[in-house]
Order: sequence, then C-alpha cells, then structure tokens
Amino acid sequence: MNLPTFEDIQQAHLRIKKHIHQTPVLSSTGINDIAGIPVLFKCENFQKVGAFKYRGATNAVLTLPDKDAEKGVATHSSGNHAAALALAARNKGIKCFVAMPHTAPKPKIEAVRYYGAEITFCEPTLQSREDTLKTIMNDTGAVMVHPFDNFHVICGQGTATKELLEEINDLEILLVPVGGGGLLSGSAIAAKSVNPRIEVIGCEPANADDAYRSFRSGTIHPSLNPKTIADGLLTSLSDLTFTIIRNYVDEILTVSEESIIQAMQLVWRRMKIIIEPSSAVPLAVVLENKSKFAGKKAGIIISGGNVDLTNLPFHL
Amino acid sequence: MNLPTFEDIQQAHLRIKKHIHQTPVLSSTGINDIAGIPVLFKCENFQKVGAFKYRGATNAVLTLPDKDAEKGVATHSSGNHAAALALAARNKGIKCFVAMPHTAPKPKIEAVRYYGAEITFCEPTLQSREDTLKTIMNDTGAVMVHPFDNFHVICGQGTATKELLEEINDLEILLVPVGGGGLLSGSAIAAKSVNPRIEVIGCEPANADDAYRSFRSGTIHPSLNPKTIADGLLTSLSDLTFTIIRNYVDEILTVSEESIIQAMQLVWRRMKIIIEPSSAVPLAVVLENKSKFAGKKAGIIISGGNVDLTNLPFHL
Repeated sequence: MNLPTFEDIQQAHLRIKKHIHQTPVLSSTGINDIAGIPVLFKCENFQKVGAFKYRGATNAVLTLPDKDAEKGVATHSSGNHAAALALAARNKGIKCFVAMPHTAPKPKIEAVRYYGAEITFCEPTLQSREDTLKTIMNDTGAVMVHPFDNFHVICGQGTATKELLEEINDLEILLVPVGGGGLLSGSAIAAKSVNPRIEVIGCEPANADDAYRSFRSGTIHPSLNPKTIADGLLTSLSDLTFTIIRNYVDEILTVSEESIIQAMQLVWRRMKIIIEPSSAVPLAVVLENKSKFAGKKAGIIISGGNVDLTNLPFHL
Repeated sequence: MNLPTFEDIQQAHLRIKKHIHQTPVLSSTGINDIAGIPVLFKCENFQKVGAFKYRGATNAVLTLPDKDAEKGVATHSSGNHAAALALAARNKGIKCFVAMPHTAPKPKIEAVRYYGAEITFCEPTLQSREDTLKTIMNDTGAVMVHPFDNFHVICGQGTATKELLEEINDLEILLVPVGGGGLLSGSAIAAKSVNPRIEVIGCEPANADDAYRSFRSGTIHPSLNPKTIADGLLTSLSDLTFTIIRNYVDEILTVSEESIIQAMQLVWRRMKIIIEPSSAVPLAVVLENKSKFAGKKAGIIISGGNVDLTNLPFHL
C-alpha cells in the first residue's frame, strides 16, 4: 500500500496553492473561557465550495495525467466532495460526472449543478450509486475520484493542517472530525511530521462510532445505520485511511448529539461564523473532556459551512 | 455645534486600537458575480460584543475625565450599545448602569448582564427609559453615554472605515446602514477625508425611512412606527448626526424588507458568516441598484452579527 508522506503533502500544497483560499485561523476569547484552554480554529468553512474537500479534489484533478483528464472525472456523492470535484474539474477545463441519489437535498443538487457537473440520479443505496457510477465511467471514460480512498485526495486534505501549523507553531493537540478518514489521514501525517509531540485526535459522533470501534479493535468496522446530525461523518474508513490513522492518530473520541448541537451553537453565537454540524464535533470533544486537555493549546479543523439554513438544530 | 474631524477619528483610533479587534475585510466571488461589481465587507460582526458599537463605546469611556469616570457610565438601550458600553466600562474598571425595557429579548438582557452592567428594568417607552435613566444618574452620579448623539462615540465608529480604507485603497463607493446615524456620521467623515471622491451612501429600510425623508427635506423627521426586520435601524437622527450626514453623505437609499432578507441570506450562504438583518441593508441597496453602481468598487460596513438564531427570517 502506497502511503502519503509529508513530502507528498508539501508537493500537493505547491500544486494547489494558487487555486485554493488560505483560510483564516480564528479564535474567540468567549470560547477559550468556556473551554478553559486556547482553541484555534482553521476555518475551512471559508474554503471554496464551503469545505476542505476542495483541497483534495483540486489536488486529485491536477495530478491526473493529461490523457486521463481529458475524459473527465466522476464520483458518487451527495455532499461537499461532489461540489468540490465539479469546481476543480471546471477550473481544469474538463468534465465532471456525478451519480447522486434522487433523495439528496435540493441545495446540494443545485450546488453540484452550479459548479457545472453532469448529474445522473440513482436510488439512495450504495449499490445503486456504485452501479450508476460504473455505467457513467463505461460510457464516458471518466476517471473515478473517490472522496477519501485516494492518495492525492488525502494529500490535498493534509494541506489545511500544514497551513495551520505554519501560522500557529505551538499547538499541542489537533482535533479533526472523522468520517471516511480522508481529512483525518492527511491532517495526522502533516501534524506528526511537523511535530511528533502534537497529539492528534479523531472526533466522531457516538451515534456513528465506526472509526472509534475500528481503531480500538484493530479491524475496520462498517458504519451501521449511523443516525447523527453530523451528516458529513456517516461513512466508514477505507483500508488506506484506516492504515494511516492507525499509524499516525493517537486517539479517537466520541461525543453525544446534544454536545455537537451545543458546540455548533456556541461557534455560531460567539464567533459569528456558520459551520456545519460535522465541524462542531471536535469542539464538542474539547468541551466533554476539559480535564483531559487542561493546560494545552488546541487546534481544530472546521471542515465546512454547508448547512441547511431552513432546518437548524437549535432548540433553545 | 462641535463637529468631529478626521483628526479626531485618528486620535480615537490610537486610543482604542489595543482594545478593539482590527476586523477582517472579506469578499465573495459568488456575491461579486451576483452584484456585478467587487464588494468588500468590513466585518464588524467579528468585533468585540459582535458589533461596531464597541469602537464608539470604548472611545467614549476612555475620553472621560477620571473624576467623571469613577462614578460610572449609564445608558438606556435594548441593543448592542448597552453590551458595548458594559464591556468598555468593565475594561476600564468602572461601573455601567443600563435602563432596559423589561420586554427586551432575553439574549440581549443576558449579554448586557454578562458584560457586567447593572440593569434597571423599565417600561418599553422612550419616556420610561429616559425617566429611569435620569433616576439612575441622580442616584449614582454616572455619566450618560448616548448610543450615537455623542462626539466621541461618533469618532470611535469612524475608525472602522479608517481601517477599511487603509486596507482597500481604491474604493469608489461606501455603503453604511443608518439608524441614529452614529456609524454613518463617523464613516462619512473618515471616507471623505481620506478621499473626497468616494461616494458615501446611507442605507435604510424603506419601512423605517426617517433618515431618507430627513435628508431629502432638510429637516429631521422622526421615525414613526418603524416596522422592519432591521432592528438596529429603528431610531431617528439627532441634530449632531443629521448635521454631519448633510455635510458628508452623498445620498440615502432605501430598500424593501424582502431585499434585506435576501441579502442577509446571500451573505450567510455564500460567505458563511453570521450577520444581523441591519447589516444586510447595504448589500440589499447594491443589489437593488445594479446599474447605478456598475463598474465601481464598493465597500460595505457589516455592522454586527447579533441575531436571534431561534427566529430567523428565512422563508425558502
């Protein structure tokens, strides 16, 4: 198995730098007071398409050999990766094909279409998504770009942590949400390579704790009927991300749905920035484990800001 | 009448600089595409207490003679000014007294209390607020700091535009929301002093168009039963702000409630930042007057981000 190194992430950064936003690192004295420690937020909600996914998708598109690229790229996704891949492809001047369940939220369908992808609708099952994607690829010759089980995608995602550590050079803990593990993999390689003493913690909803169980047991557990508001964290790890996570990540911690909602609200209220529920999971971990983190300086990757504004989880 | 000059704003800036956040200037290619022009947002929603009001309140508190300051400061307000004055007073180590209608939204009462002010509740009428404030001042000797009819408050508010123009030196239009006119006054003095060719436009809800009518007629019109979602823009101008606005502002434009809500939504969706309805009024003006502004580069002061998250105005 070919595992990315920090050098691969450095090269990815050089490659994508002029295409991405170098997102700001923000903090809030109010949140620091509540957490009891300084917490620095790397704001990928301000990234293009509103999520870190644009880093990985751009790196994947830009590393394609020309003869593969000319046929276009394809994926099945109902989320940020499809929008990210669509925009990355448009900027490269190639086509993007997306298999999407017809049940996907309308704003997500519109985003993918807005960035210029051709959508083929399918049933909301993994089988139907994979079959539809296979048909698309056979018909068009497009290359599949997986949302996380992809060397170049992982390298691209790692550039967010590289930027964070270049700006804040004394972090002691890095907290990253984990779904399929692309962001956590890239972040962990970057963090441990810059400073092996940084504690890297994967953050997961207790209601979708497949990574936690996989990490503990040493074998991949599938995500079974995950029911969480953190809709970006439903997927299971792949062999590639699981291997990287076992090599580089110190711990995976889980949090309740109530904690996620409270953390999300806290960021909205105190920082005046819009984050999606998945992005609130690491802050929820900090707030549920105050004594564990006491005296340390923490960094959090805010993964994205794409949230349905008509269906907010606030019950005050 | 003693009118502030740009030199007063420069001195205010030196005075308050280490107490305030130098807020970022953000933009969005998506919004630029929709507006047809580049629009730069000075993000005072990220200011302390979540609003530009902290600039003026801090300057007012720091310019008080010691023998006045030691008795504390007082105001009647149900909004951001009271929270701003409370925090400015706490940082100076003096007391802050606030007369607040007992009908004020709970989050606003909590914010003022959180920053350490002593609240006296009154009836939700101007008469009761003024009477209660007078009693407080008689009892305590505290000095009144008016939310906008105050030389030093206006100078403090002008520092946001000073910062904006130091960062973006080729703005051709500056759009600022207008309620009592403190922010517009300070902004207009700063903008016209830095570059007299910058067009300064006050932006007001059509449903609270007292500044528009005052500006047109040349005499102050009171705000009569204003009904707008832009709850920071309900008040009327004072002699002081009206005089400054007549001297320095080019035009006041009004917009519909629907435009305000659309503009607010657009900022939330595209920029992933939380702004209050009053802050959306200038972007609504840009979007309602595209041909008027074609070919120009516009700056907008985002006045604040304090919004009731449980009562959003989105109807999608």
